[in-house]
Amino acid sequence: MSRAVCPGSFDPMTLGHLDIFRRAARLFDELVITVVVNPNKQGMFAIDERIALIEENVADLPGVTVESWTGLLVDYARERGAQAIVKGLRNSTDFDYEQPMASMNAHLTGVETAFLCTDPRYAYVSSSLVKEVAKLGGDITALIPANVAAALQAKLA
Amino acid sequence: MSRAVCPGSFDPMTLGHLDIFRRAARLFDELVITVVVNPNKQGMFAIDERIALIEENVADLPGVTVESWTGLLVDYARERGAQAIVKGLRNSTDFDYEQPMASMNAHLTGVETAFLCTDPRYAYVSSSLVKEVAKLGGDITALIPANVAAALQAKLA
Amino acid sequence: MSRAVCPGSFDPMTLGHLDIFRRAARLFDELVITVVVNPNKQGMFAIDERIALIEENVADLPGVTVESWTGLLVDYARERGAQAIVKGLRNSTDFDYEQPMASMNAHLTGVETAFLCTDPRYAYVSSSLVKEVAKLGGDITALIPANVAAALQAKLA
Amino acid sequence: MSRAVCPGSFDPMTLGHLDIFRRAARLFDELVITVVVNPNKQGMFAIDERIALIEENVADLPGVTVESWTGLLVDYARERGAQAIVKGLRNSTDFDYEQPMASMNAHLTGVETAFLCTDPRYAYVSSSLVKEVAKLGGDITALIPANVAAALQAKLA
Amino acid sequence: MSRAVCPGSFDPMTLGHLDIFRRAARLFDELVITVVVNPNKQGMFAIDERIALIEENVADLPGVTVESWTGLLVDYARERGAQAIVKGLRNSTDFDYEQPMASMNAHLTGVETAFLCTDPRYAYVSSSLVKEVAKLGGDITALIPANVAAALQAKLA
Amino acid sequence: MSRAVCPGSFDPMTLGHLDIFRRAARLFDELVITVVVNPNKQGMFAIDERIALIEENVADLPGVTVESWTGLLVDYARERGAQAIVKGLRNSTDFDYEQPMASMNAHLTGVETAFLCTDPRYAYVSSSLVKEVAKLGGDITALIPANVAAALQAKLA
Repeated sequence: MSRAVCPGSFDPMTLGHLDIFRRAARLFDELVITVVVNPNKQGMFAIDERIALIEENVADLPGVTVESWTGLLVDYARERGAQAIVKGLRNSTDFDYEQPMASMNAHLTGVETAFLCTDPRYAYVSSSLVKEVAKLGGDITALIPANVAAALQAKLA
Repeated sequence: MSRAVCPGSFDPMTLGHLDIFRRAARLFDELVITVVVNPNKQGMFAIDERIALIEENVADLPGVTVESWTGLLVDYARERGAQAIVKGLRNSTDFDYEQPMASMNAHLTGVETAFLCTDPRYAYVSSSLVKEVAKLGGDITALIPANVAAALQAKLA
Repeated sequence: MSRAVCPGSFDPMTLGHLDIFRRAARLFDELVITVVVNPNKQGMFAIDERIALIEENVADLPGVTVESWTGLLVDYARERGAQAIVKGLRNSTDFDYEQPMASMNAHLTGVETAFLCTDPRYAYVSSSLVKEVAKLGGDITALIPANVAAALQAKLA
Repeated sequence: MSRAVCPGSFDPMTLGHLDIFRRAARLFDELVITVVVNPNKQGMFAIDERIALIEENVADLPGVTVESWTGLLVDYARERGAQAIVKGLRNSTDFDYEQPMASMNAHLTGVETAFLCTDPRYAYVSSSLVKEVAKLGGDITALIPANVAAALQAKLA
Repeated sequence: MSRAVCPGSFDPMTLGHLDIFRRAARLFDELVITVVVNPNKQGMFAIDERIALIEENVADLPGVTVESWTGLLVDYARERGAQAIVKGLRNSTDFDYEQPMASMNAHLTGVETAFLCTDPRYAYVSSSLVKEVAKLGGDITALIPANVAAALQAKLA
Repeated sequence: MSRAVCPGSFDPMTLGHLDIFRRAARLFDELVITVVVNPNKQGMFAIDERIALIEENVADLPGVTVESWTGLLVDYARERGAQAIVKGLRNSTDFDYEQPMASMNAHLTGVETAFLCTDPRYAYVSSSLVKEVAKLGGDITALIPANVAAALQAKLA
């Protein structure tokens, strides 16, 4: 039984994230999408909101659950019996940022990090850029799920 | 049943390759290591030699087989029923080189490419650099399996 | 009639910026240099000061105006009838940072972003590094226009 | 009257190239697509074939012509009265490869190089990868114009 | 008499830093390890603590001293009669970050910056990642000297 | 007594190389510029010509000699009693290319590689680009020493 953790802040999730969720769910028997809590950072969406927004979009994916976690990601992976962490990579700067964390996590507990290339259609989409554009009135509905678009509009109203 | 293909020229395999084989074998039920034949390029080792050198090093890994393939890698992955191609990434230039092929392969058949970061201890090890150093008399026995070292010495004698 | 927008915070402008202004002005009939207002960030120079410092340096360039803008850059480009945004690129990290914004802007309104390579002589010059060095007493007069050097000295006095 | 040169080997052109042609044609009054002849390299398509394949795809673009050139690109740009060379950039490795040539060309004659980011949908498409996949029987018809697909099929038959 | 400055925040030092110290000490007759004080940033360890932790680890290295400095690094290098600044590089993003500072420092006083590649074993180790992992309870004792591990544990208790 | 080796093919040397020679000569008591012979590659200039062209440009630099070497660079460094190899870095792709060789050389004999950033004015200058431009008739006299310009002109005549 293979199991993987797909971590992120998902504040909020985008279609780029959903693409990674769908593809990772095909590679592993079970996929746990994990909203990682950063106690030092106030997000736009509460953790419960982020989870709910994701759950509505992955309801059709067998073996996928959504949770949150405060603490060391590798402890979480071990506790959940996951062999791997799955993340998306958009470009070489992403790689240089992720590589030390992947090596650190392997050093700490031996957990693997498997990287998938972001679908080129979403290579420019990030939660932060989506929020920034939305705040300034730009139409980003093509880049996020419908429920996220509605929630974002409500936040900004 | 998850199955992955780990392709390369492996001319010859290094300890960096072996590290990726071992780690990939833990993520998938079955792993097919595939020596990809490039008809336009004469290697140092014959395809059969490359396969034999790998087989001796992965004999203890359950679910791992070694084969060769001439043609489009995604056709091979489909024929073997593999969901994923697994490759190692050493640095950002590697990423920029691999990304188009991963996207192309996803475009052609939907097969995934999962990237693992090379173990930092082997981040500077490549078949070509090992061969170049060995030809000039450098001692690279710490970077390749014992059987590869012997075979390389025999070739260069 | 071709028209381009050259956006930035320009807090303050440097000779690297001036080089991009001059070169961009030769490519387009009209160039609008735009000081983009970031409401969440207090700069060293007020928006009006930044504009004035730029205007004094581009007075000899035909077809060049200097303005400020609060909001989505693509809305501004559309309002001003600009076909393109022009930006300088210093290195590959710059590229990885700018690419998502260029793709996002193209997605939002179809506006193009044309990148010019920074003149190698100014590849290490940025407003933030210039300010940091100046605060610590370093002589950066060779990297900024004379009026900016005077204004910076006045600020720091 | 603004005029730009869009150089490449275009052996053969792809939809990624066509996207750059269309976008560059909107930025400049006249665009000269230039098949650069490399005397040391035998391509798959003859120069005349490459030109014809491009011409059929840009016939609807006003102000666009297709030519070939043997020699220094900046001499050509000067001879044709072009202010700029236009090129696409796919990733940071592309940037590091193109930057020295852009600086060299600016040094030689002062001609500008304006870079456009490749449309994310085509970021993985290159003439060489398309040819390699086609030779091995992969279906790349979604990545090249119809006339190129037909010509490629004829070449490989 | 060759002399070099090895600057950093060292908050706290890691085995990656120690590796650079040892290697730099072999290249220069005298090496001054310099804790650079950033008045705008409160670190985890006080400057004196950082210095003491380093001193205990370099006591066996001839010609090595540890100091602190507030101000422009090049002024310090000049005052101490150093020909070079020595820094470690982990990856290409590091390089793109360090290059402008090296060029700026050369511009200001002609001081050289000599870069050493981080030992691959420590390529993923940074003070910030070590602190982040330690705060969450991860075991990072293999990545920092023993005295730093003890001090870190005391801070976090 | 510190000694360093500055290796390259120098076919032919450029002002970028000369800049590195001058700066490296200030960091080490003795600097050996080494034309590395690649038996598999026919250069434009013979090894003796390359050496002579360099010698005429470094005659004023105390402690600098010019030699050639066929074989493993680290063997040469050891034989000459050099503690370090010195190389220039132009951009992040250069870094990703050089890093494995530096790590390999450190692995083989413990010799250090110290990298200097190329002077921004020469960041786009390489022997291969200079030759390519010269062959096509471009004026590259500002990028190479006078004796190299003359020798290049003689070769191409």
